[in-house]
Amino acid sequence: MNGALVNELYERLDSLPIVDIHTHVNWKTGTARNIGEILSYHYYTELANSAEFQRGDVPFEDPEELTRLMLPKLRFLRNTVQYDWLMMISREYLGLEAEDWAPENWKMIFDRSVEVMDRPEWKDELAAQAGIERVFLTNQYDDDLDGLDEDFYTPCLRTEPFILWMDRAQERQKMEAFFRRPLRSVRDFTAILQATFERFMAHGMGYAAMSIPANFRTFPVSDEEAQRLLDKAIAGGTWDAAEREVWGAYAMARVCDACRRYGRPFHLMIGVDRDVYAHGVPGGTDLFASVNSLRGYDYLLNTYWDVPFPTAVLADTSGLELVAAAWIRHNV
Amino acid sequence: MNGALVNELYERLDSLPIVDIHTHVNWKTGTARNIGEILSYHYYTELANSAEFQRGDVPFEDPEELTRLMLPKLRFLRNTVQYDWLMMISREYLGLEAEDWAPENWKMIFDRSVEVMDRPEWKDELAAQAGIERVFLTNQYDDDLDGLDEDFYTPCLRTEPFILWMDRAQERQKMEAFFRRPLRSVRDFTAILQATFERFMAHGMGYAAMSIPANFRTFPVSDEEAQRLLDKAIAGGTWDAAEREVWGAYAMARVCDACRRYGRPFHLMIGVDRDVYAHGVPGGTDLFASVNSLRGYDYLLNTYWDVPFPTAVLADTSGLELVAAAWIRHNV
Amino acid sequence: MNGALVNELYERLDSLPIVDIHTHVNWKTGTARNIGEILSYHYYTELANSAEFQRGDVPFEDPEELTRLMLPKLRFLRNTVQYDWLMMISREYLGLEAEDWAPENWKMIFDRSVEVMDRPEWKDELAAQAGIERVFLTNQYDDDLDGLDEDFYTPCLRTEPFILWMDRAQERQKMEAFFRRPLRSVRDFTAILQATFERFMAHGMGYAAMSIPANFRTFPVSDEEAQRLLDKAIAGGTWDAAEREVWGAYAMARVCDACRRYGRPFHLMIGVDRDVYAHGVPGGTDLFASVNSLRGYDYLLNTYWDVPFPTAVLADTSGLELVAAAWIRHNV
Repeated sequence: MNGALVNELYERLDSLPIVDIHTHVNWKTGTARNIGEILSYHYYTELANSAEFQRGDVPFEDPEELTRLMLPKLRFLRNTVQYDWLMMISREYLGLEAEDWAPENWKMIFDRSVEVMDRPEWKDELAAQAGIERVFLTNQYDDDLDGLDEDFYTPCLRTEPFILWMDRAQERQKMEAFFRRPLRSVRDFTAILQATFERFMAHGMGYAAMSIPANFRTFPVSDEEAQRLLDKAIAGGTWDAAEREVWGAYAMARVCDACRRYGRPFHLMIGVDRDVYAHGVPGGTDLFASVNSLRGYDYLLNTYWDVPFPTAVLADTSGLELVAAAWIRHNV
Repeated sequence: MNGALVNELYERLDSLPIVDIHTHVNWKTGTARNIGEILSYHYYTELANSAEFQRGDVPFEDPEELTRLMLPKLRFLRNTVQYDWLMMISREYLGLEAEDWAPENWKMIFDRSVEVMDRPEWKDELAAQAGIERVFLTNQYDDDLDGLDEDFYTPCLRTEPFILWMDRAQERQKMEAFFRRPLRSVRDFTAILQATFERFMAHGMGYAAMSIPANFRTFPVSDEEAQRLLDKAIAGGTWDAAEREVWGAYAMARVCDACRRYGRPFHLMIGVDRDVYAHGVPGGTDLFASVNSLRGYDYLLNTYWDVPFPTAVLADTSGLELVAAAWIRHNV
Repeated sequence: MNGALVNELYERLDSLPIVDIHTHVNWKTGTARNIGEILSYHYYTELANSAEFQRGDVPFEDPEELTRLMLPKLRFLRNTVQYDWLMMISREYLGLEAEDWAPENWKMIFDRSVEVMDRPEWKDELAAQAGIERVFLTNQYDDDLDGLDEDFYTPCLRTEPFILWMDRAQERQKMEAFFRRPLRSVRDFTAILQATFERFMAHGMGYAAMSIPANFRTFPVSDEEAQRLLDKAIAGGTWDAAEREVWGAYAMARVCDACRRYGRPFHLMIGVDRDVYAHGVPGGTDLFASVNSLRGYDYLLNTYWDVPFPTAVLADTSGLELVAAAWIRHNV
């Protein structure tokens, strides 16, 4: 490759400010407080689990112990980009070279990371050094947003509970408790959605978002049909696959109603197959199917022509289909 | 990249004569008569529509007005290959540079294009300059072919009306009127197909062609079953998806019978999803699905082993499947 | 490309010893004994058949005649990697250049190949020259393994008869005859599987293997349900697609039981569509579908967490799905 061109492109890109449009960081802490919290991310634990499978739990609640356990496994990950990221973090922030990462040095590495990362000024230093100007969060409807630094963070609403899990009594009760109102009718449902958007809008809401299973379909569903499904769930019944699909289409349209009303985009993240690997670490049990068409979104994208849908796909096989949709459709 | 090699390859390719195997040009005009007719092509209008959506119709019947409206939108398309084509046309044929394409110059650009393109000798000049030796047309069964310059144009028959639209009374009536005979039996249907091929063969027919929806399937269908479907349609009934599939398989086999009889190839263009974008410009409402297998063509390709099937696919996900079919099958 | 880097990579790769993990060679001969046996491989005959289709059989039983017939067809294959392999074999082993391969030289080429390849020491010379250290075979359950050179060959069991063909009376009778015991119950079936593994283990078994149709699914199936299917087949009934799927899931789990018990991997080769090209040469009638998800293997991979599953896919569209599965799952 042309080294000069590569360097120029890199430098131009590197000089751009960063707006992080999707992250799972907790705004109350903002950063990892030690290297164990970084190693606990499933990008690392799932690789270790896959490379050297051991039954038994990973001590996620004890970052120091997790660091001790992960160090010997890193030798399996040396050909991964995750390892490369880790070594860059180590060099640039901890002042430690790759050869320092011997298993017996785990305590030294952990302590050094606490020294650097567990300082109150660390988050601001890091953001300044990396040029991060704004971070769009991943929030549940009941996340505490009081005190959120809206100059830096933008809250974004995950909508899975409304669209995928409404037949679970526990989810409905949690919602009823949080909003202090019953959830027995589609009117209740719409009111709760609206209350959610109101709360997020008051904190500078970015977008609604959803990680959507492969081959999700959207189509018109009447209030009556949705009410019938809700009644069934409240009566303790379970939804079959077809009923789940109908509720999904209904609820997604209601979320789009709210997006339209509040002028917010709906961020579609398409194609996940949840919980298919039974022996995975937390966050490391999902995969995706290569068989997945965007055809099921036609109704939604056509009907909500005035809502923007920033869209991401997991499968490479959906890539060109998404590019074509973005090229033809004005709101994708 | 190796500039010398790229240049050599380009020059070798550029020196080859061009046989255009698929075009939508109208043989009676042959070329656009002004820049508005080029800008009216959906390759331009759909990009403008996607980049800056405006409800309301595009004035396709008024190329001058269309030019005026499209000029300010071109700034959104500067990173597209379509824009690059347009600028090449402008430089090479109109003598206008990219910087001349300011919105306020629309009238000058349009007038210049009329000067150049609306001359009787333009079509021959263009073909000579580009080295175009033959053009395979896209023709409907009822296109007027009288006076066709068969030394330059080859008519090709689109078969969608026969295979996909036979349950539409309007389509059947149009056919009956054009061929001046009833269309009430599968014998009538076959006779009309044969009359169509006869007419096209008399003008040097190239091939039969069809743009085929994703996951089309072929299988043996008896005359009796097809007659039952035709009876139902004539009686005013509508076909469900399964019946539509059965007629499609039947009618496609009848087209293949004709291809076999007249020694013509059947050009399959596989994978379109028609009319899925509700807010598109004419010609800009179709997309394709990434989920689409060629498995449904096995019956056809095996049965009509003596008919060549030049085949194109829309989806990248069908590419290697087509390559493998072409490598294994003798008639693909 | 960077020639020096390419050369270095090639030389490093070329210096590695070869362990051939999948081959169809017959261990009793080990190599082709003449060029006709190489040209008879479907990689050559299917290209010739596709490039210049001729009805009628290829004389596979007469390598000399096959050589005579194939020579004139090679001119169609000059742009293929198969032709390149053939010319390399010719230069390196027969001392013949590409220009020697004129159709009229067929007899000379054949005779030269017999001189070189039909010597008793040829197999060992070839293995030494190519650096082949071990070869994993493709074996049917009833292959004769007596006298197998286990220092060089590793027998591997193809499991299609057990998983895909159990409703065929002829297959069951062949099994009963070979194992000299009845096959009327799922217990018989399991016992026969076990006897098969015992026999292969006694010869240094490598792995169980199966070439699996697209969209195969695995799920729990009870012995009772499997027995019902077996009873139906024995009574002369045929299985429909759903029953075939149930037996497939059952039998595959039983093979995995054996893999677990004997500590052998199960090599999955996923995605073939058998016998879809009706006019192909032997071995040249299969294709693959681009629509094929690995989702159907979740049950198997989760349940047999202690069995390794080396996995290959035919379709490019399954590639990233497999990579992701290998990255997340510990036993893929």
